[in-house]
Amino acid sequence: HKNFVLIAGPCQIESRAHAHEMALALKEICSELNIGLIYKSSFDKANRTSVATARGVGMEKGLDILADVRSSYDIPTLTDVHHPEQCQPAAHAVDVLQIPAFLCRQTDLLIAAGQTGSVINVKKGQFLAPWDMKNVAEKISSTGNHNILLCERGTSFGYNTLINDMRGLPIMAQTGYPVIYDATHSVQQPGGLGSSSGGQREFAPILARAALATGVAGLFIETHQDPDHAPSDGPNMIPLKEMKNILSSLKEIDTLVKSLFFA
Amino acid sequence: HKNFVLIAGPCQIESRAHAHEMALALKEICSELNIGLIYKSSFDKANRTSVATARGVGMEKGLDILADVRSSYDIPTLTDVHHPEQCQPAAHAVDVLQIPAFLCRQTDLLIAAGQTGSVINVKKGQFLAPWDMKNVAEKISSTGNHNILLCERGTSFGYNTLINDMRGLPIMAQTGYPVIYDATHSVQQPGGLGSSSGGQREFAPILARAALATGVAGLFIETHQDPDHAPSDGPNMIPLKEMKNILSSLKEIDTLVKSLFFA
Amino acid sequence: HKNFVLIAGPCQIESRAHAHEMALALKEICSELNIGLIYKSSFDKANRTSVATARGVGMEKGLDILADVRSSYDIPTLTDVHHPEQCQPAAHAVDVLQIPAFLCRQTDLLIAAGQTGSVINVKKGQFLAPWDMKNVAEKISSTGNHNILLCERGTSFGYNTLINDMRGLPIMAQTGYPVIYDATHSVQQPGGLGSSSGGQREFAPILARAALATGVAGLFIETHQDPDHAPSDGPNMIPLKEMKNILSSLKEIDTLVKSLFFA
Amino acid sequence: HKNFVLIAGPCQIESRAHAHEMALALKEICSELNIGLIYKSSFDKANRTSVATARGVGMEKGLDILADVRSSYDIPTLTDVHHPEQCQPAAHAVDVLQIPAFLCRQTDLLIAAGQTGSVINVKKGQFLAPWDMKNVAEKISSTGNHNILLCERGTSFGYNTLINDMRGLPIMAQTGYPVIYDATHSVQQPGGLGSSSGGQREFAPILARAALATGVAGLFIETHQDPDHAPSDGPNMIPLKEMKNILSSLKEIDTLVKSLFFA
Repeated sequence: HKNFVLIAGPCQIESRAHAHEMALALKEICSELNIGLIYKSSFDKANRTSVATARGVGMEKGLDILADVRSSYDIPTLTDVHHPEQCQPAAHAVDVLQIPAFLCRQTDLLIAAGQTGSVINVKKGQFLAPWDMKNVAEKISSTGNHNILLCERGTSFGYNTLINDMRGLPIMAQTGYPVIYDATHSVQQPGGLGSSSGGQREFAPILARAALATGVAGLFIETHQDPDHAPSDGPNMIPLKEMKNILSSLKEIDTLVKSLFFA
Repeated sequence: HKNFVLIAGPCQIESRAHAHEMALALKEICSELNIGLIYKSSFDKANRTSVATARGVGMEKGLDILADVRSSYDIPTLTDVHHPEQCQPAAHAVDVLQIPAFLCRQTDLLIAAGQTGSVINVKKGQFLAPWDMKNVAEKISSTGNHNILLCERGTSFGYNTLINDMRGLPIMAQTGYPVIYDATHSVQQPGGLGSSSGGQREFAPILARAALATGVAGLFIETHQDPDHAPSDGPNMIPLKEMKNILSSLKEIDTLVKSLFFA
Repeated sequence: HKNFVLIAGPCQIESRAHAHEMALALKEICSELNIGLIYKSSFDKANRTSVATARGVGMEKGLDILADVRSSYDIPTLTDVHHPEQCQPAAHAVDVLQIPAFLCRQTDLLIAAGQTGSVINVKKGQFLAPWDMKNVAEKISSTGNHNILLCERGTSFGYNTLINDMRGLPIMAQTGYPVIYDATHSVQQPGGLGSSSGGQREFAPILARAALATGVAGLFIETHQDPDHAPSDGPNMIPLKEMKNILSSLKEIDTLVKSLFFA
Repeated sequence: HKNFVLIAGPCQIESRAHAHEMALALKEICSELNIGLIYKSSFDKANRTSVATARGVGMEKGLDILADVRSSYDIPTLTDVHHPEQCQPAAHAVDVLQIPAFLCRQTDLLIAAGQTGSVINVKKGQFLAPWDMKNVAEKISSTGNHNILLCERGTSFGYNTLINDMRGLPIMAQTGYPVIYDATHSVQQPGGLGSSSGGQREFAPILARAALATGVAGLFIETHQDPDHAPSDGPNMIPLKEMKNILSSLKEIDTLVKSLFFA
């Protein structure tokens, strides 16, 4: 069985130069470690805690930058979509469309995404049981598109706290679709800082190890060269300079687990 | 202090004739009990559990029916919107725009709704703490529109279960905006029937009493003349023929509570 | 149907003089409002957050004080027991034995308590579903003693937080046993202050209103003349001087609810 | 760093012959795999869901059997205690005293256990945050006994469901005490079968892998030669004949994780 694929990048597209810098750095790390990379970045933060915080560069500019990154470094790319009409343009610019967790039951969006024929990475809502993702996947597959990834990013546990039920990973895998574990959003503390979300980035690599031990197909990790000054999700992003060491040990665990249980 | 306002109606617009029948019946009940009524119905069920279930009559026809109901019976109306571009047309046809719980952090939708100047009833996400609704309200009020209602409809509690934290009602009221308690969605069991949601309608009137005892400004109750055969939300809707008795006793409790604590 | 009974008193027995002072004050309030009173106080705090905090006066002295209070003011009394062998001596001194929530599944304790023939008030564990209290009651009733009260005091909701599911009150009442709502422990924040529990006493009267609106048989409210300096549970106890006003309005709600739904 | 220690055995002591049979089988497996074994079994099931189910062989006979197992096979043994007065006799017969999760805040029991000087394995209550186990450990260490193990066995998540927060394992390890992961009670569904607890034994080995990936010091796994006919905890025990394969792969993961992160 193949090693995990890595979906990684900064939370949002900050500038063309920043996207190039991050993509190049991640490509070098993943090439050296022989890890498959999908570069992730958002053109719009459509559901931030507070209206006063940065939204991003917008769709047109963002997709142009992502297309540029893809062609410059020959790496597949991913971005998230929020409205049905964003799906077609995004599908021209990137390889994977992502459905945000809050929107994982919005039928029109799932169908519009599915109709592009692109790979769709759909995040499990914080309010959803893992067995209910089968209904979500069926909305996409009703379009004839079966290129579906199911992504765990935490479940509501009391207030301002997410928890991962590691049983949910094999349960979602029973659909037959690859399961991705989002290590950095899983350690978010939604709304935990009053007008923005907190996070516990120190636990992201530990939880990624646990998820790989169960046997997931991919990891999703947001990273930034300076998380404490990133415009969004700083508290839970992994510093870029730590990525190589983290990924190196994650790959060793993954290789062993795949050989033991998924050979 | 005034008695509670009632937002009520069938989950979805089934036909023009059905809407007239329901609105007339509710108007008669509320007139007799002297309860302020806002007629509620949806033109589109945009986030159903399964792709195979009924979506509704569509926006154009649905808004036309709601406008018809409003002028025929002289009662304010409410419907929910799912995309920013639905806000203006909906605001012409109805008096209150409702933001669904899953979408309560979608900035574009909140702002487009706010910009209509209509009253906005925004449901608290099942994944949100009550104190975080202040950030949601600020997205709407950033447009200059302060006609905001905050609505509790249950919080995620384990899998396939919602719970109401009755402390959340006075906490949301600290924003200064009226708080609505949605008694019928609070007893939903999301995804609880596999490919549709279950419900415990027998608890809706009991929870409504509890919410009124804390001092809410309004109640939201979905009702239907034949819930067991309704196209959506049947397990948690209240049979129409029980509404008068239920509302009558609810009003007595509300009157006492308002006189004791909100005079 | 009868009005609610009140179980009230300071969390722990601080001294003979303090017990007399509290019991007399509560008796006067309840006599004036015509509310049935059971005086509650603990001789031992057996499961405090930290080993460094006060345990109480001990069983022998505590039971002697409670017996003294009972005979001096002719009011029934309640105390909690933690070991099977405490049940007989406690049953001689007080009228109601209370089983702490953490211990609600300890078979030996439930049976020893049941065998005294006293009324047993058993708190629902923070880890227990309301429908599972039927098994707890059956452990007691297996002794032939059916004088059982079932008490809600909050359910675990994430970390360091309790929540009340108001549906749980009518669900527990389906056993046929009277249901008590513990308003002051329900607003505890277990372990919330690091080495002791926090609390939100401002919500206790509001939640008590909600619980009465559902139709409970009794309320449990801890009170103290100076909660901020009480040796335990200060953050969630109600100041004694507020009790009369709170109880007066609670009785009005209870009278209405009982006349509407339990006549 | 050393490989994980294994605490394993059948939920309850069924008979002397059964204990010998299980202990011998487990010893052979662990010897072959070079895994340190502590044999676990209970003499009394003191908090079962229903009063009608089997309690066990009792303390005197149970401790005698455990002492016999220890001397016959030269393996350390563990049993759980429920009352302070059980601690001394149990400490003579076994090597490790275990504090049940529901009782993890009972000060007298923790202190009596600590005073024996034995190793104490204390389970985290289903109602407790991982950071609050520091207060629990301090109750034991206040006796001068620092031979403490902290054990995760699931946290309340809605009704009749437990969840493991894998962040809790490193958080508890910050106390400096070894952390044990209880894989079989973590997949219990408390009260889930009405008058007994359900379980999902198929997830126990997967969760054990995840816990080892975070770096725990030990695993706790209940096992039985015929779980479906065991007198308690059948739905979550691992069949004995599967243990060798499961442990063999768990040891490989553990060896890798310890070499990567705890060398």
